[in-house]
Amino acid sequence: MLTVVLIGTGNVAGHLYHKLVQSKTVQLVQVFGRSSEALLPFSKVATTTKYKDLYAADVYIIAVKDSAIAAVSLQLKSVKGIVVHTSGTQPMHLLTNTKIGVWYPLQTFTKDKEVDFKSIPFLLEANDQVSLETLKTLAKVFTENIHLVNSEQRKQLHVAAVLVNNFSNHLFYWAEELCKEQNLPFEILLPLVKETVAKLDMISAKEAQTGPAKRNDTETIQKHIELLKQPLQKKIYQLMSESIIATYEKKL
Amino acid sequence: MLTVVLIGTGNVAGHLYHKLVQSKTVQLVQVFGRSSEALLPFSKVATTTKYKDLYAADVYIIAVKDSAIAAVSLQLKSVKGIVVHTSGTQPMHLLTNTKIGVWYPLQTFTKDKEVDFKSIPFLLEANDQVSLETLKTLAKVFTENIHLVNSEQRKQLHVAAVLVNNFSNHLFYWAEELCKEQNLPFEILLPLVKETVAKLDMISAKEAQTGPAKRNDTETIQKHIELLKQPLQKKIYQLMSESIIATYEKKL
Repeated sequence: MLTVVLIGTGNVAGHLYHKLVQSKTVQLVQVFGRSSEALLPFSKVATTTKYKDLYAADVYIIAVKDSAIAAVSLQLKSVKGIVVHTSGTQPMHLLTNTKIGVWYPLQTFTKDKEVDFKSIPFLLEANDQVSLETLKTLAKVFTENIHLVNSEQRKQLHVAAVLVNNFSNHLFYWAEELCKEQNLPFEILLPLVKETVAKLDMISAKEAQTGPAKRNDTETIQKHIELLKQPLQKKIYQLMSESIIATYEKKL
Repeated sequence: MLTVVLIGTGNVAGHLYHKLVQSKTVQLVQVFGRSSEALLPFSKVATTTKYKDLYAADVYIIAVKDSAIAAVSLQLKSVKGIVVHTSGTQPMHLLTNTKIGVWYPLQTFTKDKEVDFKSIPFLLEANDQVSLETLKTLAKVFTENIHLVNSEQRKQLHVAAVLVNNFSNHLFYWAEELCKEQNLPFEILLPLVKETVAKLDMISAKEAQTGPAKRNDTETIQKHIELLKQPLQKKIYQLMSESIIATYEKKL
């Protein structure tokens, strides 16, 4: 059976742990964390705070913040298994081990909200074919939605992920605040939010675009900018509108 | 039975028509359009291209573009029913009739994509209580999700709707383009998009925020800006990140 050591005790590590301990095809043999306290939620398997006590395993999953990946990789110099990181932004060759790879679940993980891994795409990369097959087997514990993606592609996908997740969510937050100011529940907007996304199953975002900027309705755009209070919001509204206008102008 | 005349043959009018002709509590008696050709899809009821031939009805729904509402209202000077418009941006008093109101379905209507009205909020306003009750009855043909919202509130909600629908959708488009450049299917990002929205049923957008800007990870932000090609996109990425950083800084 494929054996795995998990390095890290954060948000992503937690979600991976919960799924891995249930697996019948992969055995999570150990979790490494910097403090015994942080390791408490991982107590269904062996844990350690010392790199020298790491078990032998087929795969070492580094699930730590990006800035710590290189240092962890150095600590794993002597291991024989494949060393992978789980980052969307970092190149594979940040890892300095012999057998390396990237094993990146493209999803937003929130603490305390369970994740349905089945639909989550895993983006895989490895420096040899055998390792890649092993990483596929490991990903299949979570999903059938597996893609082979090189570091260049993954970097760009991560930008795209920031746009569709982080920035959209910030717009939702901003809308929440506007509702609050008017004593209206944000729930009023949820059907619209859901329809916006539901459309993407049927038509492209390009085709789905509507609104004042799409119509080049500069009067409404100006009114909206006047209504907004913060200078930064005004600027973003202006630029987003310009970008939409430019998108549809150039294709006419 | 409540009788209704529909003014307009566009996207919104089309969606309203399809639902109204099926109603057993409201009777759509006529549709007005500027050309006989545009009226063809509305042939299940009487149609006219002349204001002087309008039927008497309890409610006249003006579903035309914002800039034409005032002119249509003038044409309806002699009608006895309630005159309403369906715009999110325009004040009620743009209408110059005696009994007036706003009857605004807060949704994005795409041609050829059927709309499930049940979940759509209708935002209502009227200049007297009896008219308001009539507009409620009319809205109930479509949904139970009915809100009384004044012009000021509706204006702000419309800005919020632009943010959550138009701007989010533009970010999705932009992500589609980034995927295309790397020969990756946009479908890779759909689970992330869906999870972003699914979270809103459980936690606020404020709590759901993740990503480089939330972490104030300026290195990743800079890398992403360098990866983007268009100056306008770079600027928007920068400002959205600044706005996220500012949101979480000030609350610490």
